[in-house]
Amino acid sequence: MIHLHELNSMPTQEFVATLSGIFERSAWVAERVATLRPFRSVLQLHEAMCTAVDRAGIEAQSVLIRSHPELAGRAAIRGELTPESTREQLGAGLAACSSEEFARLQTFNAAYSNKFGFPFVLAVKGHNRASVIASLEQRIGNTVEQERAVAVREIGRIAGFRLAALVGEPLGARIVSMADYLARLSEHEHALTCSYLTPTHRATAVLIRDWMLSAGLEVHVDAVGNVIGRWPGTAADASTLLTGSHYDTVVDAGRFDGRLGILLPIAVAAQLQRDGAALPYTLTIIAFAEEEGVRFKSTFLGSRAIAGRFDPATLDSIDCDGITVRQAMQAAGLEPREIPAAAFDPARLLGFVEVHIEQGPVLLNEGLPLGVVTSIAGSLRCFVSITGLAGHAGTVPMHLRRDAAAAAAEIVLAVERHCTGTPGLVGTVGQLQVPGGAMNVIAGRCELSIDIRADTDELRDVAAAAVVADCERIADRRKVEIQWRKVLEIGSVPCAPEMQRRWADSIRRTTGTPDARHLPSGAGHDAMVMANLTAMGMLFVRCGNGGISHHPAESLAADDADLAARAFADFLLNFSHNS
Amino acid sequence: MIHLHELNSMPTQEFVATLSGIFERSAWVAERVATLRPFRSVLQLHEAMCTAVDRAGIEAQSVLIRSHPELAGRAAIRGELTPESTREQLGAGLAACSSEEFARLQTFNAAYSNKFGFPFVLAVKGHNRASVIASLEQRIGNTVEQERAVAVREIGRIAGFRLAALVGEPLGARIVSMADYLARLSEHEHALTCSYLTPTHRATAVLIRDWMLSAGLEVHVDAVGNVIGRWPGTAADASTLLTGSHYDTVVDAGRFDGRLGILLPIAVAAQLQRDGAALPYTLTIIAFAEEEGVRFKSTFLGSRAIAGRFDPATLDSIDCDGITVRQAMQAAGLEPREIPAAAFDPARLLGFVEVHIEQGPVLLNEGLPLGVVTSIAGSLRCFVSITGLAGHAGTVPMHLRRDAAAAAAEIVLAVERHCTGTPGLVGTVGQLQVPGGAMNVIAGRCELSIDIRADTDELRDVAAAAVVADCERIADRRKVEIQWRKVLEIGSVPCAPEMQRRWADSIRRTTGTPDARHLPSGAGHDAMVMANLTAMGMLFVRCGNGGISHHPAESLAADDADLAARAFADFLLNFSHNS
Repeated sequence: MIHLHELNSMPTQEFVATLSGIFERSAWVAERVATLRPFRSVLQLHEAMCTAVDRAGIEAQSVLIRSHPELAGRAAIRGELTPESTREQLGAGLAACSSEEFARLQTFNAAYSNKFGFPFVLAVKGHNRASVIASLEQRIGNTVEQERAVAVREIGRIAGFRLAALVGEPLGARIVSMADYLARLSEHEHALTCSYLTPTHRATAVLIRDWMLSAGLEVHVDAVGNVIGRWPGTAADASTLLTGSHYDTVVDAGRFDGRLGILLPIAVAAQLQRDGAALPYTLTIIAFAEEEGVRFKSTFLGSRAIAGRFDPATLDSIDCDGITVRQAMQAAGLEPREIPAAAFDPARLLGFVEVHIEQGPVLLNEGLPLGVVTSIAGSLRCFVSITGLAGHAGTVPMHLRRDAAAAAAEIVLAVERHCTGTPGLVGTVGQLQVPGGAMNVIAGRCELSIDIRADTDELRDVAAAAVVADCERIADRRKVEIQWRKVLEIGSVPCAPEMQRRWADSIRRTTGTPDARHLPSGAGHDAMVMANLTAMGMLFVRCGNGGISHHPAESLAADDADLAARAFADFLLNFSHNS
Repeated sequence: MIHLHELNSMPTQEFVATLSGIFERSAWVAERVATLRPFRSVLQLHEAMCTAVDRAGIEAQSVLIRSHPELAGRAAIRGELTPESTREQLGAGLAACSSEEFARLQTFNAAYSNKFGFPFVLAVKGHNRASVIASLEQRIGNTVEQERAVAVREIGRIAGFRLAALVGEPLGARIVSMADYLARLSEHEHALTCSYLTPTHRATAVLIRDWMLSAGLEVHVDAVGNVIGRWPGTAADASTLLTGSHYDTVVDAGRFDGRLGILLPIAVAAQLQRDGAALPYTLTIIAFAEEEGVRFKSTFLGSRAIAGRFDPATLDSIDCDGITVRQAMQAAGLEPREIPAAAFDPARLLGFVEVHIEQGPVLLNEGLPLGVVTSIAGSLRCFVSITGLAGHAGTVPMHLRRDAAAAAAEIVLAVERHCTGTPGLVGTVGQLQVPGGAMNVIAGRCELSIDIRADTDELRDVAAAAVVADCERIADRRKVEIQWRKVLEIGSVPCAPEMQRRWADSIRRTTGTPDARHLPSGAGHDAMVMANLTAMGMLFVRCGNGGISHHPAESLAADDADLAARAFADFLLNFSHNS
């Protein structure tokens, strides 16, 4: 393994020689990108190389394709493959073909070669013999142009796998570059939006799957679209530690919300495997397909399936075009009937841990990179509607008014007052409006939302009761009517003390600080749902820009990602069943 | 003159006999409505009679039309007309036709009779000989069906004039019934909307013109659509006292805003004339075409033209369909070039008085029907935009927030606090919203409007300065940015002390109270513009329903309208040039 900074600084000739095997027998690709150094990440290097191939034209691409051996073909038998190809073909089990499989491969290979005039190229990582053969058979149906494009794309994937295995880089930079790369896939041109089962969402899943494969994981996609990578434990009958987060996003999202909790474990698993580490237990990384509820208004869809808490009624939820979840799943090749089978057996689980950006400014303001989550706050959400009396802004004396906007203003400040000063408690009026308000009309109505969260339900309920009592006094004094409609009430979910202790230990060991900061999570996470299944713990990572999240300005320093990755690795290495 | 309550209670035969002349030689119309008694107003009786004619069918209508004499025809010469017809034809000056006019009348009458087979019927009130002949010539172009409908409509108008002259009713009931009747003309099916130069607006003008004619006024419509009724004074070279208000409305309006100040003077002038009163000065009642600014966003269009302050740039203002004021005027048969000629000469004016509902609850709460307006409040209007920092409602601790909604709430209460407790001063936040707000997002922006009014500009400015100072403190403390955009600043307009004294005297004499309540007007009125032209005074009349206005629930008790009419009559009778 060589490090990216070494590649960036070595003489051109050495650079080209080092990367000559990334594209099969085609050192020219490395030559063309040598002057583009320094590369900030392996992904950037990979992308530059793929772009060089794209720009080289059809002729050069055809030569590149022809440089590849037939899969399990004569070259393999004769031992004429490059070391990389040999390793890959062995990995897919192609060396162990049955004679029947071998015969089918030969037949299809001949038909393919006959039709296209170049060998069948496939990134075999993640394939087995059967899926390789099926893919070969299917691709024979392509036109030459289509198939050349597929072959070039597969060569690019192969190059990605080879680069990941060959070139190292700091974990933090790796994680941030992966998040940046994923963020380019979006439903909107100038904003990151990735909602459940859209083409963007499926393409995101494909990329995550490749990176899991790159990290040496066994990957499968379950019936709701969760991408699941498994690193089998060494112990006989190993139980499983789960980790992960979601890859869907809100509209106009940040790049790290959810995704950090997928990409960081992938990067860490890859690093540990490269370092020759082995875990006694199985580590399973889950990229949850859906948490934010943007498209179908049904949140936590991915983790609910894993936790065996998927509500079949969800299948009938519709998006704004009237498409049901069921229809969207089927269009994406997912089978709703298999959702129950996606649930994990709690008896085989050691726990679930989620790494997440804090989405707030607490760690940032205290100068701390990492924090242990104590609990996920419960929340109470209400719509409040105030009815006063509209009137002419010029003609109704102040003391005779029943101004709904003034009543609303008092409520806004009451929420703020009753939720301030108690750690772990927050209250927000995020929606506020006088419907159809006019400058010269006293507000006859005003509507607002109240969101109160606390790390314990008692705290939340005391604050909510105080606000309600104030509202009654306001309604009385101002002679307005105040109606409440509760739209959400979720109890707080404490993190398992054992998990908190483990995270605190790992933070201390990694950062060298005597104590780890403990803080509640005001936002909901997949971990809330997973806590129903198994012991749950969360690690918070500091985010920048004032802690802003659900916003393009969401940020994470590579150094913080690096520290978090090291804490996660420490957590994994120190985690064992019985401790 | 007979009173409506007498008509309501008399035996059928007497009822029919009394009303037998309302529809020319057609007592059957009265017969058909006799069982519908009691009628609440003369207008309701009139409508019932017209409906009876409509339902009687073409045959009966044809007979009714044929019951009418030819205008200035042989019957007139032979003295065979009914007393009503004789009076009407004399009023239009038809008895004084020149021989040339008489010849043209005869020619057209013959052509008309030839084409339609029935006599030409026209409500001659408001016509002169030339316009009668022009109308006759024009109507010959109609089809038989069209012309029959026109004739029936004209017969209905004639009946209206005859009923108004024959049947008396309490002035208050008359005024309220006129407002109710006008409110049926609307651009919207279930709401009153009458905006400048729409078909509704033109039809409203026609009805007001008829009522002015009914009241014995000389009527003309000026170049902007103001309907102007003149009662010439008896004095040689009499100067003019103006009164009036606007007949356009806001969207989904009340029935009395503006219109009371037109209908009440019409009813009073009619009453005074019936009572044989004569005024030494000329009384001119102006129904202003436009005050609210709904269609073209240009307010006070009618009074600006009268006051000689019409801004020609207004002609290029467009409505939401891109139609300019100029185009709308031309389509309505108005001539923009004649607008300057619509201005009144201040040297010939004694003053302008406006009767208006209070549009507020002050008189209502104090149990007083009438009030003297001291001044029309000046106003300051601003849009305020607050920029804080959006954030996750669950993850940003309270002390780290820069919540724009909470800052807005403080501003709302600051406006209320600084504008409370000082008579004549009011402050309103009528628009308030978090744009694109979400329940779980701290408001990064909030927008609100501020409207501050006071009867003196000093009072208004002191309050505004206090609010601005508070905003600066709020911005500082909450680390938000607060931007002001002033959109309107109008100085207050005091009512002439002499006019206030006269109104107070009239209120005292009419209501028998020792003192008249004086109060400022928080709303703007045509009187503000007219104050530029001549001495201005206003009478406020109590409105019901908590003083609500600009709303369908706006109300006025008939008894209050009656008191106001009596105060207005007192005002007129006691008003003279030199006092």
